[in-house]
Amino acid sequence: MPLPQPDLPEPAHPEVDSMLSRKFGKEIANYFSGSPLNRVSFLRPDHAFLSQAIRHPTTKVLLFNKLEPLVNSSTSIATASFADVTSIVGVDPFSRTEEDTIAEYNSSVYVPQIIFLGLDERSEGLVYKEHYKGVPWFAVDVTPKGSVTEECEKLINKVTANGKEFSKGRMHLSLPAQEAAIYAEARHLLDWNARNPYCAACGYPTLSINAGFKRTCPPKDIAPAVQNPERPPCATRTGISNLCFPRTDPTVIMAVVSADGQRMLLGRQKRWPPYWYSTLAGFLEPAESVEEAVRREVWEESGVHLGRVVIHSTQPWPYPANLMIGAIGQAIPGGEDIHLGHDAELEDAKWFTAEELREALRVGTSGLGEEAGSEYKEGGLRVPPQTAIANQLMTAVVNGFASGNPMI
Amino acid sequence: MPLPQPDLPEPAHPEVDSMLSRKFGKEIANYFSGSPLNRVSFLRPDHAFLSQAIRHPTTKVLLFNKLEPLVNSSTSIATASFADVTSIVGVDPFSRTEEDTIAEYNSSVYVPQIIFLGLDERSEGLVYKEHYKGVPWFAVDVTPKGSVTEECEKLINKVTANGKEFSKGRMHLSLPAQEAAIYAEARHLLDWNARNPYCAACGYPTLSINAGFKRTCPPKDIAPAVQNPERPPCATRTGISNLCFPRTDPTVIMAVVSADGQRMLLGRQKRWPPYWYSTLAGFLEPAESVEEAVRREVWEESGVHLGRVVIHSTQPWPYPANLMIGAIGQAIPGGEDIHLGHDAELEDAKWFTAEELREALRVGTSGLGEEAGSEYKEGGLRVPPQTAIANQLMTAVVNGFASGNPMI
Repeated sequence: MPLPQPDLPEPAHPEVDSMLSRKFGKEIANYFSGSPLNRVSFLRPDHAFLSQAIRHPTTKVLLFNKLEPLVNSSTSIATASFADVTSIVGVDPFSRTEEDTIAEYNSSVYVPQIIFLGLDERSEGLVYKEHYKGVPWFAVDVTPKGSVTEECEKLINKVTANGKEFSKGRMHLSLPAQEAAIYAEARHLLDWNARNPYCAACGYPTLSINAGFKRTCPPKDIAPAVQNPERPPCATRTGISNLCFPRTDPTVIMAVVSADGQRMLLGRQKRWPPYWYSTLAGFLEPAESVEEAVRREVWEESGVHLGRVVIHSTQPWPYPANLMIGAIGQAIPGGEDIHLGHDAELEDAKWFTAEELREALRVGTSGLGEEAGSEYKEGGLRVPPQTAIANQLMTAVVNGFASGNPMI
Repeated sequence: MPLPQPDLPEPAHPEVDSMLSRKFGKEIANYFSGSPLNRVSFLRPDHAFLSQAIRHPTTKVLLFNKLEPLVNSSTSIATASFADVTSIVGVDPFSRTEEDTIAEYNSSVYVPQIIFLGLDERSEGLVYKEHYKGVPWFAVDVTPKGSVTEECEKLINKVTANGKEFSKGRMHLSLPAQEAAIYAEARHLLDWNARNPYCAACGYPTLSINAGFKRTCPPKDIAPAVQNPERPPCATRTGISNLCFPRTDPTVIMAVVSADGQRMLLGRQKRWPPYWYSTLAGFLEPAESVEEAVRREVWEESGVHLGRVVIHSTQPWPYPANLMIGAIGQAIPGGEDIHLGHDAELEDAKWFTAEELREALRVGTSGLGEEAGSEYKEGGLRVPPQTAIANQLMTAVVNGFASGNPMI
């Protein structure tokens, strides 16, 4: 059986009537978006703020072990208090200023990663400089490592003793939409920090700053094993470099309809279960618009030639760092022949009718690793669940995205 | 005087009538998109193809010196032939397979960067495996460096002797749209390769492969100074890592209209010329949808609260690696008060009327470093040129983006 599907996030301010919503309809909010937190990004370098925030009695801390989040169950993320993690991060991890932290950088000291996720303004909590209020949310990496290995293991044993667990699933998450969005932020940033311990410009180890949202290449390293603490010049220290900031990879994913609007192109990879198809997708390349990336990917993977492409909605996808940009594209007349020989990515690509799609969206949805629902009949089309933007794109087309009539 | 403004690129297949274009209008193609080249990305690892392509008599090569392109004039990019660069890259730079190139990696050898940009299928040229035809385009980095310093200097003197020059401008480009798109692809990739000589996962030097579209961390380095040629394990060698692929940073840029649709919010940075304003913009963060990033950035920079946000179009921006995602957002009733105190990024933010915007778009457009046109009167609003998506967003709103009536 597929896991219960969570509700999708609510769009912001759905009650406000506007010219935009009258022409373009309700905003589409996909799973992993819709975070209730205010990130107050400009406060991240402010250690006076961070120090108060992490030590506030209302503060909630997500725990991750090797990028797996602590959950109460598949439908509830677990939160710890700051007191739970002081054995790992210390009683005041932001006591020094950021400037001093950089100046006293020592690459031999393992510093467990802390991410400041934002303030939940819906609840009473910290009040900082009058404007910034709410319950602070953090994520802490408790993977047993370096000098804190033993303390992390102790904590892990303690928190998993009462039925909670570090969730191994990735596509199986059934968290409520708002918890999923907070989880996505934490996972994306923990992964980015873990994946980038060295400076791509000079090869030296880097240091996480801005509460996990920046990595800097310190000019000095006082580690005992380092012969000369002064490091050579690094390009990231002169001016602003994108290398210092989290990476997000724009990815296009598209429901492709035939020139007459009556069929939809889906593809499948070899490793997927039988009868499982999805929308085509691929990474946007340097110097492409979204529409160009959509046309290129569709031609490369399926041989189909597209004309007009319209962006539908976007979805953050933290495995590890994607921004899924969902689009609807229409084949040009005569451009519908399928040719799989350009790029070897797909095992098959096929045109499906509205009837087949409608049935699949009704009975054939599930996560990739799950079984289909009880109404599904072997041999019928299987498609991704509604938490995937692929499903939202198919649904939009089947419901009459462009014309109000099915297909589009 | 502002430089002459190039035409914007044509959207793909504008002659095809479709349900999408009937509902959503013509596709918006911004400057730096609209490349005429087929990238045939799946052929990039194929050195038999690359070897034939770069040595083909029709092949065109763009030359870059410190990321500055060789141009005939501000309205024409210069192309060289492969023969012009053999003194720098050798007579057959793709003679070995990619596999062998990696196996024989030697970090002490400077390899001038070559980028395969694509095939121009509109002209007769190479024919490869029946399907892939056209004039091959490449870019070569001729910055004087390493063992080829002297040869590069010679080439630079030769090609700049006859009036051509390496263009120092960045916002001043007035290239025709298709040349600008090819230039953008080359610049983005040359910059990415130059900016990332080391592996962010392990700190060792990396090697450019896939004709400039991938960097790999070789398992062995036969450089004489390296004591142990076998390198330690690296995370990028097990499975696919995004670190190996070019980075593109999704950036949101937005025309913000008031709740009643009658005014538009623009901001200015301190370093801009007097009276110059533009749309607000900022980087999308991990685990944000585009709409959420727009609302966050607008609130952080101006204090204004947005409701519905609609994506308008996108623009590749190769300085160094952005995908500009253009959007229109509308303030919620009561959310229009400006507060610049959150983030210190803007010197000013202000609401402008349709009349002010219309006049500015008529007489006040220019590149940032240029003077306004002759009709502009001191004190009037100045805004970016039509090659910037900011201008396209303002124009869309002023022309009635949502309602057909000005403002939106």
